[in-house]
Amino acid sequence: MSLQTEIRKMAVSAKEASKELAITSTEAKNRVLLRMAKELRKRLSFLVRENKKDVAAASRSGKSKAFIDRLILSDKGVRGMAESVETIARLNDPVGEVIQMSRRPNGLLIGKVRVPLGVIAIVYESRPNVTSDTAALCLKSGNAVVLRGGSDALASNRAIVSILRQSLRDEGLSPDAVTLVSQRGHEAVRLLLRQNDLINLVIPRGGEALIREVEKFSKIPVIKHYKGICHVYVDEVCDLNMAERIVMNAKVQRPATCNAMETLLVHEDVAPRFLPPMIRKLQKKGVEIRGCEKTSRLLKGIRRATERDWRTEYLDLILSVRVVKDLSQAIQHITEYGSMHTDTIVTENHEHAMRFLREVDSACVFVNASTRMNDGGVFGMGAEVGISTDKLHARGPMGLTELTSYKFIGLGDGQIRK
Amino acid sequence: MSLQTEIRKMAVSAKEASKELAITSTEAKNRVLLRMAKELRKRLSFLVRENKKDVAAASRSGKSKAFIDRLILSDKGVRGMAESVETIARLNDPVGEVIQMSRRPNGLLIGKVRVPLGVIAIVYESRPNVTSDTAALCLKSGNAVVLRGGSDALASNRAIVSILRQSLRDEGLSPDAVTLVSQRGHEAVRLLLRQNDLINLVIPRGGEALIREVEKFSKIPVIKHYKGICHVYVDEVCDLNMAERIVMNAKVQRPATCNAMETLLVHEDVAPRFLPPMIRKLQKKGVEIRGCEKTSRLLKGIRRATERDWRTEYLDLILSVRVVKDLSQAIQHITEYGSMHTDTIVTENHEHAMRFLREVDSACVFVNASTRMNDGGVFGMGAEVGISTDKLHARGPMGLTELTSYKFIGLGDGQIRK
Repeated sequence: MSLQTEIRKMAVSAKEASKELAITSTEAKNRVLLRMAKELRKRLSFLVRENKKDVAAASRSGKSKAFIDRLILSDKGVRGMAESVETIARLNDPVGEVIQMSRRPNGLLIGKVRVPLGVIAIVYESRPNVTSDTAALCLKSGNAVVLRGGSDALASNRAIVSILRQSLRDEGLSPDAVTLVSQRGHEAVRLLLRQNDLINLVIPRGGEALIREVEKFSKIPVIKHYKGICHVYVDEVCDLNMAERIVMNAKVQRPATCNAMETLLVHEDVAPRFLPPMIRKLQKKGVEIRGCEKTSRLLKGIRRATERDWRTEYLDLILSVRVVKDLSQAIQHITEYGSMHTDTIVTENHEHAMRFLREVDSACVFVNASTRMNDGGVFGMGAEVGISTDKLHARGPMGLTELTSYKFIGLGDGQIRK
Repeated sequence: MSLQTEIRKMAVSAKEASKELAITSTEAKNRVLLRMAKELRKRLSFLVRENKKDVAAASRSGKSKAFIDRLILSDKGVRGMAESVETIARLNDPVGEVIQMSRRPNGLLIGKVRVPLGVIAIVYESRPNVTSDTAALCLKSGNAVVLRGGSDALASNRAIVSILRQSLRDEGLSPDAVTLVSQRGHEAVRLLLRQNDLINLVIPRGGEALIREVEKFSKIPVIKHYKGICHVYVDEVCDLNMAERIVMNAKVQRPATCNAMETLLVHEDVAPRFLPPMIRKLQKKGVEIRGCEKTSRLLKGIRRATERDWRTEYLDLILSVRVVKDLSQAIQHITEYGSMHTDTIVTENHEHAMRFLREVDSACVFVNASTRMNDGGVFGMGAEVGISTDKLHARGPMGLTELTSYKFIGLGDGQIRK
């Protein structure tokens, strides 16, 4: 069978499975999820053993320590995967929810009801837990899923997916609701991305290069975010202690995440008081500062930020700092250099807060909170499949609801068009 | 200036205008719309004169009567355009609507607020009223619009757009909120469809060939429906008088619309009673019947439907008729041959109604109502920019709300991530 035929067949089987899953009851879906969690735990040593093959191969081929850290699946990691699947089983099923319903003047009852999207493809890198997390989210929302993980995690992903598929079979459902594209090479992904008559959505998860590659080749709609260049703006009238807590949290708590702050903007009136102690505290935590001209006048020995720094997602303990004239210049900076992900104003001025909320065109805009608060869990969505900086369909954290569409239903007693 | 530069410049200007429009108040947007309506009326004779140029050229080049009918802009047509714009001014502004808002356990108030998409491109054929209707819908929802109408309506569209742009200018807003791509040839559209960093959404309106062309070349997300192969299924237990009224309305009231019925499915138990008189009544209205084998056994002289007929959107007084064994076969037929647009069951059986609503995967599923009821106006949406059979972002009739996205806003008092 040619690669093209293989990929096509997978997509066709996933579509078939999605039709069954779309009308499977919440109870039946939860039973499958709980069985999956149980089987993941039961087969812990098998999973860890298979993962060791991947880790050994990655070490031999000289991958970085950070890369291998992400790849490793420990006993605790497997138990974490099982717990995530159980958490997802406990979330509300979005399918069948009546979003709105009203009676029209002609007596026709018109409603909108949530339905699954159909088949969702997830293209991701080398964290094995993404495999079970995203499969569970897709299943719970009634969607079949086609998974394409990084080739370095292939043995791990094969082991995880075999367990998930067996659980589906054991509960009397089609195993094709969860499919792994395990063929090596770019061509397999590119063929997958052309199945736009069968696959309804692609979510790429990983670095910007991976996401741009998916976007470039996909004939299927893609929801994504390229990067998170998140800003905190410290306004002229604000609680400077609160500003300090927010800045520290946004930069230092987990610098490698997309919602960590990359650029700090400070109103010029508070900069002389706020910046020197703030920068010294950040430096004590190991943060390297790259500042604008005014910043470097306030503190000696600061490396100058270049045009390129304002556009860089460091994902590391590095921070760009700029002193701005006023709120307008802060918003201008965010519009020019930001990535429409998450931006925060720290202010006591109500009018400024409202203007920032209105004019900053990002997926998530905060007043007096850390950028790190942009998270499906924090927002009460239970779990997230990713964060979108797109504007169509879903923006910000994407949970179960964002993996659904809706249909209009109309209940009549003979209504016709006049 | 090269064509590429011209198109790029248009898209850049539209993006700039969209930023202004996104934060323009509802009052200001309504003032512009009411001025547009007034100016369209005032310049009626200019519009009709420009339209006559298009009509004359179309006649010379031998276009069909139906084509020319759609192209003609009468006095009444201009007044209708103005009234539509006024109707849109009266609709609720979706921008700024708080969709949900709740306080999280940590005290953070998290909400979702509707925002405009940005820039919307509309690619359509030769009805001049689409120009003012879609421009008004985009403006009201805070979006800039780039219009690409059929080349046969160029003089008409230029005239309409010049009036809309002048109205924007007169109200102190950027005229680039409404732009007409008037360069002739396919290359202009293809270049437009590559501006995915500036244009947020493309809506193609017209025949299937136009829509497939847009889908093929667009790097921008497209929302569309290719065609409407709509079904009415007459179930075994139902009010046959109601079934007759619904079938007649769905086929005959306006056969050229996408929500008109193309295929009638009838349960075999009621077919002998229902079909012969129904078909005779349809034939009296000029409807040509193409039937399955069982249908042709019930009535002499019926042309046999081919496999191709089940997949054809006639948009005309032609109807495919099939006798089915049961509800399952009806749903199977719809799944196999339908276009996921609008499908109706006529039944008195509650279980059948519920199963049809659940299992038919169409944008709009009705019980006991004509397929023609699938309409933004009928649904209380005020006006529609099109009907989507896609599943992402918007499905079914698309009104003002469907031309918006949302952002998350978070109001805190110093929340940080633990």
